[in-house]
Amino acid sequence: MTTKPPALQPKRVAILGFGTVGSSVARVLAAQSFPGIELTHIFNRSVARKRSSEAASIVPTSTLWTEDIEDILASDIVDILIETIGGLHPIEAWLTRALVSGKSVVTANKQLIAYRGAALAEVAQQHGTHLRFNAAVAGGVPVIPATLQGLQGDRITRLSGIVNGTCNFILSHMEAGASYADSLAQAQAAGYAEADPAADIDGLDARAKLCILARIALHAELDPDRVSTQSIAPVSVIDFQYARELGCTIRQVSRAQLAAGPATPLVQARVAPMLVPLASPIAWSHGTQNMVVTSGEFGGDVVFSGHGAGGNPTAVAIVSDLLAVAQNSTAVTLPSQPMEVSGEFFAPHYLRFIVDDKPGIVSAISGALARVGANIDSLLQRPGHPKHRLPFVVTTEPCLTSTITAAVSSIASMDCMLEAPLDLQMLTIEDKAED
Amino acid sequence: MTTKPPALQPKRVAILGFGTVGSSVARVLAAQSFPGIELTHIFNRSVARKRSSEAASIVPTSTLWTEDIEDILASDIVDILIETIGGLHPIEAWLTRALVSGKSVVTANKQLIAYRGAALAEVAQQHGTHLRFNAAVAGGVPVIPATLQGLQGDRITRLSGIVNGTCNFILSHMEAGASYADSLAQAQAAGYAEADPAADIDGLDARAKLCILARIALHAELDPDRVSTQSIAPVSVIDFQYARELGCTIRQVSRAQLAAGPATPLVQARVAPMLVPLASPIAWSHGTQNMVVTSGEFGGDVVFSGHGAGGNPTAVAIVSDLLAVAQNSTAVTLPSQPMEVSGEFFAPHYLRFIVDDKPGIVSAISGALARVGANIDSLLQRPGHPKHRLPFVVTTEPCLTSTITAAVSSIASMDCMLEAPLDLQMLTIEDKAED
Repeated sequence: MTTKPPALQPKRVAILGFGTVGSSVARVLAAQSFPGIELTHIFNRSVARKRSSEAASIVPTSTLWTEDIEDILASDIVDILIETIGGLHPIEAWLTRALVSGKSVVTANKQLIAYRGAALAEVAQQHGTHLRFNAAVAGGVPVIPATLQGLQGDRITRLSGIVNGTCNFILSHMEAGASYADSLAQAQAAGYAEADPAADIDGLDARAKLCILARIALHAELDPDRVSTQSIAPVSVIDFQYARELGCTIRQVSRAQLAAGPATPLVQARVAPMLVPLASPIAWSHGTQNMVVTSGEFGGDVVFSGHGAGGNPTAVAIVSDLLAVAQNSTAVTLPSQPMEVSGEFFAPHYLRFIVDDKPGIVSAISGALARVGANIDSLLQRPGHPKHRLPFVVTTEPCLTSTITAAVSSIASMDCMLEAPLDLQMLTIEDKAED
Repeated sequence: MTTKPPALQPKRVAILGFGTVGSSVARVLAAQSFPGIELTHIFNRSVARKRSSEAASIVPTSTLWTEDIEDILASDIVDILIETIGGLHPIEAWLTRALVSGKSVVTANKQLIAYRGAALAEVAQQHGTHLRFNAAVAGGVPVIPATLQGLQGDRITRLSGIVNGTCNFILSHMEAGASYADSLAQAQAAGYAEADPAADIDGLDARAKLCILARIALHAELDPDRVSTQSIAPVSVIDFQYARELGCTIRQVSRAQLAAGPATPLVQARVAPMLVPLASPIAWSHGTQNMVVTSGEFGGDVVFSGHGAGGNPTAVAIVSDLLAVAQNSTAVTLPSQPMEVSGEFFAPHYLRFIVDDKPGIVSAISGALARVGANIDSLLQRPGHPKHRLPFVVTTEPCLTSTITAAVSSIASMDCMLEAPLDLQMLTIEDKAED
């Protein structure tokens, strides 16, 4: 590549939030001293405590520490804000003000970008400023810049992936035999899961990321609240055993695809624990790794994977964005449009029941499936479980989500059911580059 | 992302070469009708034949077909050249003239970019034109834009990958039990390998791609001719059997890494068949798939994989570059510098001998290794082979390439050796994100 002279006037940078990610950004900047980048401000509550932390020792002594956001928003020397605080309020108002006043913004804030990204990008465009958010999805895995710069020539019709490291940590531990409770506790002990892990477990974190990816890759603006989610909490170790018999494992998968040939543009989208074939790249991710697979009409499947969380990998994404803004580099953009969301997929399903075994159960379950037109693909019953609490699995041929939901709902009300049935979508492999 | 109005004046595009890749570019453009892009010229020898081909039917009727490159180079309406012909001459002169005269260039030409990319980029910069070559490495896998836009904030110290689809096709067929000759014949029948497959088999194609990646990721300008290569031809099915016993498979790996703390900047680089742990992402690639792993000091390992060859995936990379040029998007660039190349790695080795078995051979081989200070890690001798033609494997603990080469050279001259010994480097897994 060409060698560019460093900018004559350095870009003055403010970091908002000096937690794990914010302090890692300072560390990555300090370690490499990029020409043309100067860290001038750090905003945080309790600045005195932050400033005496070990992480603060690598911050230039010339940097101004402040608890007053006005020191940054009203400053006429700050060029670029790096936002690592998260949440919608008051961040949206702050960043809007920055963009309007000629400051560019680099953010890792997935909820903000998922809900308000299109509006903020509009503000940035109107004011000739930059808004970049590569760190908002999959941390150090550059799926957003790769898609914007390397795949916009394709027509991407599907994307699927693992974009929540906490769930992946828990499920890959369960794959190795640990219980859900133990795996969650371990994720919390390691600092991966919050004390209240609901946003991860229930899929809300992944849903925000999926909506951002849908905008970039499918050119579809989705309302995150319309994307259906399913918690991973009901998945148990026995499900991993059955999954393995089926040549699969279980992962929290986020998927979205353009519905084939509908009258109005429609995106099928869902975040849920799903059965994933062991031969699929989605099954390769272990621990907190993230993985995204885009499927293009011309280029086929492209796989991205790496460290999806953690201070340093996320800081790499932020600093890369910062360099792009400092060099005034613009990403390739194709128009995106609002699209309706449907949770309906045509897919095979894994249904696991815990029953008090009696004659006629198989007949009753298969009858309920037959009534909605769902064909059974396999029946699995592993030995070694007590009859009065028997796990029992049915897989179906591909059918609509709503069809299965109706059948499972009627099965759930049977007397012999000791727990709510578990209904998991099964991913299939269908990579093809048309050539 | 922001919605940009289409450019008022469309960019006029010429395709040089209407073979597999060039015609795929026309197809991808025709299928999507990007605003602001107009295909005005196609250059090829034997235009009459090309023009009557089925692929030509999707070319706009307004497009000028020509056998005279002057129709394009001297044209003042062509804005962007897409070069899919390959080779250094006369392409370098043509593209230089285009860049100087205000035309931007998108190319898939790996040899040109490996040998002359820095000089051409300099020309482009001096004349305010763009030079893009994402298609030159790994076809539809956007490792170049992802690295330029998403990983420049990291300090990438190593990269390794599979960037030659033909070799990967052959070796993954051999992994499944086929002979080298049959696998090569199958690759040729499928159109993956040339009648003379030397550039693929001997590693020259992969070497060019490795040098381009080293420029992008390691900021190192390497002379391709100084990068050592090793042919995959001597690898046999028996080596895959031994590799499996060692928890490995065999792939043509291209690797480069910044040498730790030398006085002068030095890159260790090599293209060779290597033993790859089955748990490494490098082992996941089958068929013609490509895979690149970058290793950053802060972000750890990032994996990219997908279709590395074929008309449509390569066309996706080209059209994505074309959109970037048309939108006047610039990539993030950090300075690169010329660096010396060394073929010396500190790595474990797999040594396979075919011997006429006699007492004292193990002692002689282990003695030769001991004399250079190489420690044996394992000795493998599978049953079922005749004593007069016995495959026999030694793996060593990590040592320098030159140390092993010296030992193998002395072993090769022993009377009992029926073939030249096979010496393969063994990859190890060492992903870590520092956090």
